[in-house]
Amino acid sequence: MNLSAVMKPRAIALIGASAREHTIGHDLFCRLTDYGYKGELYLVNPKGGEIGGRHVYKSVPELPQGIDLAIIAINAKFVLDTVDQCHEKGIQGLVVISAGFKETGPAGRELEAALAAKVREYGMTLVGPNCLGVVNTHPSVRMDGCFAESLPRRGDIGFVSQSGALGGGILNILKDLGIGFAQFISIGNQADVNAASAIAYWENEDDVRQILLYMESILQPQEFRRLATRTSRRKPILALKAGRSAAGASAASSHTGSLAGADRAADALLHQSGVIRERSLKDLFSSAKAFSLCPIPKGDRIAIVTNSGGPAIMATDAVEDYGMQMAKLSEETKEQLRSFLPPAASVKNPVDMIASAPLEHYRRTLETVLADPGVDMVLVIYLPFLGLKDTDVAQAVMDIRAKHPEKPIAGVFMTTQEFFTSLSGRDVTVPFYMYSEEGIAAFDRLNRQRKWLARPEGKIPSYETDRGAARALLDAARGESRDTLTTRESIALLDAYGIRTCRSKLARSEDEAAEFANQIGYPVVMKMTSKTTSHKTDVGGVRVGIRSEEDLRAQYRDLLAKLTERGLEKGLEGVLIQEMVSGKREMVCGLATDPQYGPMIMFGLGGVFVEVMKDVCFRLAPLTDQDAAEMIRSVKAWKLLEGARGLKPAQTGRIEETLLRISQLVADFPEISELDINPLIVSDRDGEPIAVDARVKLKA
Amino acid sequence: MNLSAVMKPRAIALIGASAREHTIGHDLFCRLTDYGYKGELYLVNPKGGEIGGRHVYKSVPELPQGIDLAIIAINAKFVLDTVDQCHEKGIQGLVVISAGFKETGPAGRELEAALAAKVREYGMTLVGPNCLGVVNTHPSVRMDGCFAESLPRRGDIGFVSQSGALGGGILNILKDLGIGFAQFISIGNQADVNAASAIAYWENEDDVRQILLYMESILQPQEFRRLATRTSRRKPILALKAGRSAAGASAASSHTGSLAGADRAADALLHQSGVIRERSLKDLFSSAKAFSLCPIPKGDRIAIVTNSGGPAIMATDAVEDYGMQMAKLSEETKEQLRSFLPPAASVKNPVDMIASAPLEHYRRTLETVLADPGVDMVLVIYLPFLGLKDTDVAQAVMDIRAKHPEKPIAGVFMTTQEFFTSLSGRDVTVPFYMYSEEGIAAFDRLNRQRKWLARPEGKIPSYETDRGAARALLDAARGESRDTLTTRESIALLDAYGIRTCRSKLARSEDEAAEFANQIGYPVVMKMTSKTTSHKTDVGGVRVGIRSEEDLRAQYRDLLAKLTERGLEKGLEGVLIQEMVSGKREMVCGLATDPQYGPMIMFGLGGVFVEVMKDVCFRLAPLTDQDAAEMIRSVKAWKLLEGARGLKPAQTGRIEETLLRISQLVADFPEISELDINPLIVSDRDGEPIAVDARVKLKA
Repeated sequence: MNLSAVMKPRAIALIGASAREHTIGHDLFCRLTDYGYKGELYLVNPKGGEIGGRHVYKSVPELPQGIDLAIIAINAKFVLDTVDQCHEKGIQGLVVISAGFKETGPAGRELEAALAAKVREYGMTLVGPNCLGVVNTHPSVRMDGCFAESLPRRGDIGFVSQSGALGGGILNILKDLGIGFAQFISIGNQADVNAASAIAYWENEDDVRQILLYMESILQPQEFRRLATRTSRRKPILALKAGRSAAGASAASSHTGSLAGADRAADALLHQSGVIRERSLKDLFSSAKAFSLCPIPKGDRIAIVTNSGGPAIMATDAVEDYGMQMAKLSEETKEQLRSFLPPAASVKNPVDMIASAPLEHYRRTLETVLADPGVDMVLVIYLPFLGLKDTDVAQAVMDIRAKHPEKPIAGVFMTTQEFFTSLSGRDVTVPFYMYSEEGIAAFDRLNRQRKWLARPEGKIPSYETDRGAARALLDAARGESRDTLTTRESIALLDAYGIRTCRSKLARSEDEAAEFANQIGYPVVMKMTSKTTSHKTDVGGVRVGIRSEEDLRAQYRDLLAKLTERGLEKGLEGVLIQEMVSGKREMVCGLATDPQYGPMIMFGLGGVFVEVMKDVCFRLAPLTDQDAAEMIRSVKAWKLLEGARGLKPAQTGRIEETLLRISQLVADFPEISELDINPLIVSDRDGEPIAVDARVKLKA
Repeated sequence: MNLSAVMKPRAIALIGASAREHTIGHDLFCRLTDYGYKGELYLVNPKGGEIGGRHVYKSVPELPQGIDLAIIAINAKFVLDTVDQCHEKGIQGLVVISAGFKETGPAGRELEAALAAKVREYGMTLVGPNCLGVVNTHPSVRMDGCFAESLPRRGDIGFVSQSGALGGGILNILKDLGIGFAQFISIGNQADVNAASAIAYWENEDDVRQILLYMESILQPQEFRRLATRTSRRKPILALKAGRSAAGASAASSHTGSLAGADRAADALLHQSGVIRERSLKDLFSSAKAFSLCPIPKGDRIAIVTNSGGPAIMATDAVEDYGMQMAKLSEETKEQLRSFLPPAASVKNPVDMIASAPLEHYRRTLETVLADPGVDMVLVIYLPFLGLKDTDVAQAVMDIRAKHPEKPIAGVFMTTQEFFTSLSGRDVTVPFYMYSEEGIAAFDRLNRQRKWLARPEGKIPSYETDRGAARALLDAARGESRDTLTTRESIALLDAYGIRTCRSKLARSEDEAAEFANQIGYPVVMKMTSKTTSHKTDVGGVRVGIRSEEDLRAQYRDLLAKLTERGLEKGLEGVLIQEMVSGKREMVCGLATDPQYGPMIMFGLGGVFVEVMKDVCFRLAPLTDQDAAEMIRSVKAWKLLEGARGLKPAQTGRIEETLLRISQLVADFPEISELDINPLIVSDRDGEPIAVDARVKLKA
């Protein structure tokens, strides 16, 4: 793939250029010329003639050589032939604006497949089809190949938008907010170029210092993960992934499956890749502004400088909501503030200079607070007060920012829209917001990037396992045309991969059951294992707390009677006699396969609470040790594992290992589609995690 | 209290009027005159002379009679004398702008107490001190008695702001957003008038059709609840309560207490009062715009009409986030849409007219969708596209709104700020937002008000109880100078109030324990009850699942040995022998007392999960039956109570009754400060809720 041909073309052919106003072909022509494209622009239209005084070629074959990019805005049915002609002219890059492909149904889908195949065959690079175009604002390129309303503003953002029309809206709003960008790609139907390719291209583009993504679906998730994980350590990546609800739950029947759903997968993917996920365009833009104008902070200690208490309280609330810290100002700092602020002012953080604070107080307070080594970021709040001008305060803040570029500063100016409009025309060096929570949200994003950069990269460990035994178990099930393993098989599979399961033996008769129970030691659990009934509790197939042989024999007979009554006795393999693991903490872990994103590992609170509390965390497989460590710490039940309420602390390293071994299992055997360990009991005695029950499903 | 004198004065004395620019006294003068106050305005300043051509009185005694309101902006130390003089002149209303009271420390606090006492003594009504002033935009009043930057815009909102400076900021932004208001009160330190008094005053003011509150503390919470509950059924009340984090946890030691904290209490209070709580000013303003321009919908089924897929997807996500429904369009509606929309359009909800939709398609689609009886609210999304003007689309939407005033319509226009600025000068009849989630958030607020109006008012039931027995138990503890009841006493207290506790008897010896256990029937639980040790689990004082007399006797001896080892045997009252209630669902309920808001009832998931999962709900006492019904349905564990995973459905009416009986108990005995029932086990057998353990604390 050669995105350079698309993004930095020496010459462009605009195919479908038009002289008729309010057409895409005209709009594109105007944008390219108005913005002052630095290369050669050639126009193509079968009608020929002139547009805006420029010659119009009647066909592609008439064009000269040396063209890098064709922007194609013609009826979809002519696109394939045109691509052939472009190829013959040596054109490498294509932007197909035309709609009428995948988005229109089966015929369009076929047309798009043919287009993609052609592009692959020719080794060309294609943006679109059904897209808005591409933009590069670099002074040496100045290509506005987009049919949006406004001309772009120069900045440091690389922007990928999947939706065409929305992309146009986004460009308008960015311009309006005074946010510039370096490059813009409307990927449309993503027949060739997608978000992952854009990230790959921008990884080494110095002109792009942050990457923004608007996506409705993430194609090539593993490729996306690989590239984004690497690139996000060099420049922030922010993403808005829409379609959270439309996704719908996966059809899987296990707990892990029903808790998953595509959005969980997208969330996990973005998280693991170091991509900051935004929930709204507004947040996306706010964050982008912060990354453009602020350095990454050294920590999360925030100081607030204000001339009004109310917005500072709201900002403090937001700091806590985001789990950041209010900076503790040093005695020295407070002393200094006291020396010039009036007695009614508060020199504790938030520093309230009171309503009458003059410009000079803003300057000195901000300088003083910035100098405190206990402060990592400073929010400056301004409310209009008798004659103190918003623009003057803003200028003062920017002046000080110039002297102290090492710490992020943001402004919350609760003033008129006019102020913000006036900013968009100026060279602004500090992000200004209207509301407290917006300013703190921006700091949160900077802080998240800081934490991502500080996070070790993590490794995918490799454990010794009995792969042959696992293979044999799966083959045996396949041999019987089953896609669900029995409890016994499931437990044996875990055993083969070194996961601690509770001691158990399969007994095929009452006497055998009694014998094994005596070996394992009372109390024991007796569990039916059957090839026809997977939900054991529904038929009363699990008996816990059996304390004696007498008790065991009675329970065994009762179970058999119940099964016979329902005609289910045929499938019975026998009963598992298990050690009774005593533990209040029932966790769940497992594997679900998302049809789009692939296998995901899950961990959380198990037992009867699993679906009710939904206190679970998902990550895409394969897991790194970092992923596993984060997973178990990201659920609320972590406090129980740490040893809340007098519980023995769990052996957390062992739990992490369990997750990593599951990850290895599915990497070795991709035919496993679902796996549930529920419960994974954390022993009250020594905190050991023990898999007590398991279910495994294979791909059909 | 007579807020009419303040809000509709026939004549005003501005005390502290000044000719010097950028002073409060000058600013107030300008605002009152510039806005064209309809009554008589008298100026007072010891210097006398003239301001803006008007005579300045040198003192209050010189003023004529017939003045209703004094706006006082002088040094705090002169305020008390001035109030005396005002009283002598027959002035009823006071707005004290001056700072230098409670907010400055002990001396100021004393001064404010003296001011409040004077006002009460004279029967005057006081707004402030330390406030921004008051505004009434009614054409017959036109009083802008506020030192904010901009003149107010007329509208239907009654606005209360606690913070002075922030109030000014709010007025600016409201003006900027084109949101008008009817009356504004900056309550400042709330020495007399507070949010509750404003609500009381506005309840019958037709000019005020919705009430907005910005508060940092809610004074008189019970009074607030009473008034807001009633008034919110006549007009929506929206509140931003800041200081969520500053509140900090209450010092209480019980579970209920540590889960509470002041913000939980504020949240409960607002919820029970039908007040819609907003988390940011931005949301507050967005919602206000919706209530000003939309009717209350008949249901929560939302249709979306758009010319771009992306924002419609984001809106759909938001609909699901808020728990509302996407409307299902009828076949008839779809048929009609198909008749004029292009084939590429989608006639399912969201209705995507595609990017090229002309104005006419907006009109017809909106009309068609509005006519569908399965649609309660319609969101219209517009993205700029080749020549279709935002203002034209907006006008078309407003034209149709005029013909269909019965259903809420909102617009999401992803266009330039210029569009929104242009709106603020016009007579807008539809709320327009920039982003999808803002439009859906507005619908959410309308829907919440709909649900509140549909909610039965609820009653506080009265149960027959053994009040005498309860009195005796509390007195006995007091008699021994204890503020913590023993387990036995706590359970007996619940018994006296008709709460089902597990059958138990207090045994004072091993033999007695065996005798009682035989009466109750095995299995039983044995629990130590002690006057010196309240956390029984810490000393191993709870033994469950005792199955035989032999077992019981062994456990009893072991417990005694453990206590003796730690020197704790002295406080032992004996052991409770309890029926062993078998139930997987361990709930918690109880009572906590917030120092500011008073007693709160709590319900949620209990056992070891209580502090970890924090799946609990709080409501201020006294509870209505509606409150109790809502409480148990608002926790995640509700699904377990309903009977998820094959569990017997809980007797929910009995759980509600338990909460209501606790509420009655604390109403009868306000000296109870904390009460914990943990666990309240829901029996697996028949779903009966049974209080298995309880702790009660009295106020010190």
